[in-house]
Amino acid sequence: MTASENRPKKSIEFWYEFASPYSYLAAMRVEEIAIAHGVLVEWKPFLLGPIFKQQGLEDSPFNIFATKGAYMWRDVERVCKELDLNFRKPPKFPQNGLLAARLAMCEEVKVQCPKFTQAVFSMQFGGGEDISNFVNIQSILEGMGLDSEKAFAQSQSEQVKLALRNQTEQAVQRGVFGAPTFITSDGELFWGNDRLEQAVAWAASSGHKS
Amino acid sequence: MTASENRPKKSIEFWYEFASPYSYLAAMRVEEIAIAHGVLVEWKPFLLGPIFKQQGLEDSPFNIFATKGAYMWRDVERVCKELDLNFRKPPKFPQNGLLAARLAMCEEVKVQCPKFTQAVFSMQFGGGEDISNFVNIQSILEGMGLDSEKAFAQSQSEQVKLALRNQTEQAVQRGVFGAPTFITSDGELFWGNDRLEQAVAWAASSGHKS
Repeated sequence: MTASENRPKKSIEFWYEFASPYSYLAAMRVEEIAIAHGVLVEWKPFLLGPIFKQQGLEDSPFNIFATKGAYMWRDVERVCKELDLNFRKPPKFPQNGLLAARLAMCEEVKVQCPKFTQAVFSMQFGGGEDISNFVNIQSILEGMGLDSEKAFAQSQSEQVKLALRNQTEQAVQRGVFGAPTFITSDGELFWGNDRLEQAVAWAASSGHKS
Repeated sequence: MTASENRPKKSIEFWYEFASPYSYLAAMRVEEIAIAHGVLVEWKPFLLGPIFKQQGLEDSPFNIFATKGAYMWRDVERVCKELDLNFRKPPKFPQNGLLAARLAMCEEVKVQCPKFTQAVFSMQFGGGEDISNFVNIQSILEGMGLDSEKAFAQSQSEQVKLALRNQTEQAVQRGVFGAPTFITSDGELFWGNDRLEQAVAWAASSGHKS
């Protein structure tokens, strides 16, 4: 049996950045929508900063283009209301999601990556809190019954740092230029929370081809 | 009776740029969706070029950020398929929509602005043709039973040139930073074809407030 035959028939990659408001909107919904279509979600945290830098941007486009940034917050607020999601604008944007991204990929956390990711997003954009704060993240880990000391130690290992760098590099190679992004197993790419439903429907109908 | 009392209770401004693919997707649907909600559409052509320049961009963001641009075309193609709209990628992007925008605002055409606008967008993104081409636009005008000679003459008048400049300036003042944009009578702004339904629903439920 080859690796390819061993792969689930229907799956979708969910690429997200912890600092991204629209990734929050997608992270809170993707599992439910995917399950309803019989699609397995692969959670792929990555860093958007290096990708923006490659585009010649030294900051989030939402800060560089102020009018667009102001609109984005209003839009996210409205969509949260529609989706019945909590929303509180954090004082700082973008936040540093490096710690959360590394934790999401370490041994202690990664089996519960979806739950951890949702908790971090809810804390940041639902509660308006700082996710680069060690104590805040610790409370999430412990609330999930995880060994926070172990998780923090693992997250600082060379292995995890390299894994996150590789995942970000892989995102670039796959054509990811923003977050959230969905990629189906036949290589179709969908950008933005607004494409979640379309992406999952595509994955559900095309999974058997791969 | 004041001008304000004379205004329809429920309306929405539809701001669009003739060179914008997502404006095509919105222009082909906005009337039908608005009518279903009892909302009147005000068609507002404007030029995106000067707005991008104010943002420090010398070209369309879809050309500056090549990966995003390539994605955009694939996305538009997919959405067209979903919406049952024709799609053919024009050889040049962005096209010069100045002639079309001026025509949309001149006396001879503006009463039929929605029909003219849809025909221009269909020619460009449904047929892949050049909308800065005089003969192409002439065929649209004549197909609509309009006096094309009169329309072209009016479109080159100082009055029409100034009206388009003013409308573009008004767009900036209203917070428009991209196209399409919808603005409700209570000042709520929605950006993108993906927000058409939400914008119209907002206009329908908030119209009585203004």
